[in-house]
Amino acid sequence: MSYARKCVSDAQGYVPGEQPVGDDYIKLNTNENPYPPSPRVLEALRTAIGSGLRLYPQPTADRLREKIGEVYGFSPDEVIVTNGMDELLSLVIRTFVEPTDTVVLTYPTYVLYETLVRLHGAKTISCELEPDFSLPESIFDTTGKVVFLSRPNSPTGTMFDKERVARLAREFDGIVGIDEAYIDFADEDCLEFARQFENAIVMRTFSKAVSLAGLRVGFGVANSAIIDELMKVKDSYNMNMLSQTAAIAALEDLEYMRDNAEKIRGTRQILTSELTSLGFDVAPSQSNFVLATPDGYPLPAKDIYTQLKERKILVRYLNMRRLDNSIRITIGTDEEIDSLLKALKEMS
Amino acid sequence: MSYARKCVSDAQGYVPGEQPVGDDYIKLNTNENPYPPSPRVLEALRTAIGSGLRLYPQPTADRLREKIGEVYGFSPDEVIVTNGMDELLSLVIRTFVEPTDTVVLTYPTYVLYETLVRLHGAKTISCELEPDFSLPESIFDTTGKVVFLSRPNSPTGTMFDKERVARLAREFDGIVGIDEAYIDFADEDCLEFARQFENAIVMRTFSKAVSLAGLRVGFGVANSAIIDELMKVKDSYNMNMLSQTAAIAALEDLEYMRDNAEKIRGTRQILTSELTSLGFDVAPSQSNFVLATPDGYPLPAKDIYTQLKERKILVRYLNMRRLDNSIRITIGTDEEIDSLLKALKEMS
Repeated sequence: MSYARKCVSDAQGYVPGEQPVGDDYIKLNTNENPYPPSPRVLEALRTAIGSGLRLYPQPTADRLREKIGEVYGFSPDEVIVTNGMDELLSLVIRTFVEPTDTVVLTYPTYVLYETLVRLHGAKTISCELEPDFSLPESIFDTTGKVVFLSRPNSPTGTMFDKERVARLAREFDGIVGIDEAYIDFADEDCLEFARQFENAIVMRTFSKAVSLAGLRVGFGVANSAIIDELMKVKDSYNMNMLSQTAAIAALEDLEYMRDNAEKIRGTRQILTSELTSLGFDVAPSQSNFVLATPDGYPLPAKDIYTQLKERKILVRYLNMRRLDNSIRITIGTDEEIDSLLKALKEMS
Repeated sequence: MSYARKCVSDAQGYVPGEQPVGDDYIKLNTNENPYPPSPRVLEALRTAIGSGLRLYPQPTADRLREKIGEVYGFSPDEVIVTNGMDELLSLVIRTFVEPTDTVVLTYPTYVLYETLVRLHGAKTISCELEPDFSLPESIFDTTGKVVFLSRPNSPTGTMFDKERVARLAREFDGIVGIDEAYIDFADEDCLEFARQFENAIVMRTFSKAVSLAGLRVGFGVANSAIIDELMKVKDSYNMNMLSQTAAIAALEDLEYMRDNAEKIRGTRQILTSELTSLGFDVAPSQSNFVLATPDGYPLPAKDIYTQLKERKILVRYLNMRRLDNSIRITIGTDEEIDSLLKALKEMS
């Protein structure tokens, strides 16, 4: 017999990208940053390792929330920090959505949203994105407790028009969760919507531009009434001590992060133009990855994934409707991208 | 207007013990270990700080699960690791309990269980413990999706009879969650119930005996069918890289943890006998704290808490029915306990 809730036993769970053990892969599959964390972060971590780890962390992570507020122009009570942004997504659902309610999503988008809603026992409505991956008019007619938008959208890398996102925040009757995981690689953000609209929450992560995927740091900014409710639902000590320390140090060295993001944008431009020459259709990316479709390349996406893996290069084959002939490639260092392009040339 | 679910907006949230910033308090209020983590843990952490933090952790924490399995006699698929045991408690509820279902608790016990069930939207039944804090016969007549037992029980520090816990596992129709947060300070555990009963999960933490509250490491052992369902519901990357590293190193130096636990048991004996001489009634503790009631002491519990705080000694005043004239005192070092006893003598 199964003891689990039906919504859980029926679910598959989310399958994250491969994290191979060992260093021999060029890893372009999970959108990590190819550059190491700031030396100041590593120094702060070294200093924090000691007897103090026997104590619980400060439960509401006040110093980190103050720092985030200071950097992005919010008061600490408009900020929540979480064990990666994944935890924040789960908290948004558990705080605002009854299992009998509906969450609005786009398609294609980050698969985890749907997984989390299902595991909560709730329903989703999916609005099909236009052929160019822009927001369809139909999304403005939906109702639900929450809508999640990924901007830049994963796994397409493309942007939604900012004015249309503002319109959605104005017209939607529930919470508008704007996932800005990749925003540091983009031209413009929606941070001000968290001040402007009482139902908007803007969500970010330290896993991409800040090079700290290993430490699990996410945060959200919103109206303090929204944050208050989320703070009740989060675990008391959700953020471990070292991650709080590292995140504060990273925010004191934003220049380092911005320099890396700039380098990655440069590499993205090279990769995009080279892939295009090789016969790929590349969606215009504002992220640290590109979605590439081998329209004029001699191999289908799945074979490209497999053959690259044999050559110790990991990219993401998504196996989703509309994208089943696409691969998602994380922007690595220039050298890594050179190796990838060399392999693709050899394979063609 | 509130966007939150009614069960959330109605809830208060859990209020953890004070975590004062600064080092000038003798901190005997949140059951942390007075001794630092193992030097081997600190060394492993120092080695792990580097460029690798840019990568996601291994999502299923396989090496740590293998190590736990090896140490406690389980296969890795009978183990789940979580961001503190708090996350595991939340996962158990979200995996096995519909919001229309009931969870069985005892009273008094760890307040967080009830908070988590409420935040999920579900109901609780509380079985009143006997005057000596043993399990009442009535608990065997309850039905629910989950029953949580804290053994040793927090905040009383006392043990439930092991045979009666086995009987509960046999007779209860749902999941039996046995919270062994404090078990390393006790004479006997229930680990084998996780092998013996298909509905039992035994839950542990690295926050107490292992001196790693700051790093948030918890784990559960159970039948692999139970673990499979919990693994679906957990966040993909719930355990950060450094906590995984630290936990593995701690399990390679269990002798260090056991020596500290032994010292704490010794200090507990001294504290218990001194408090008794001062006119306190002390519940027989198998934990790293004692529950003390000032029956023959000249001040009530609340005043003791306040006056100790003025003297820079923090203990926990619980303000719960049946315990509103008790304080919970964490076992510190011998020196810290000497300072506490000196203060209590001066105050009397």
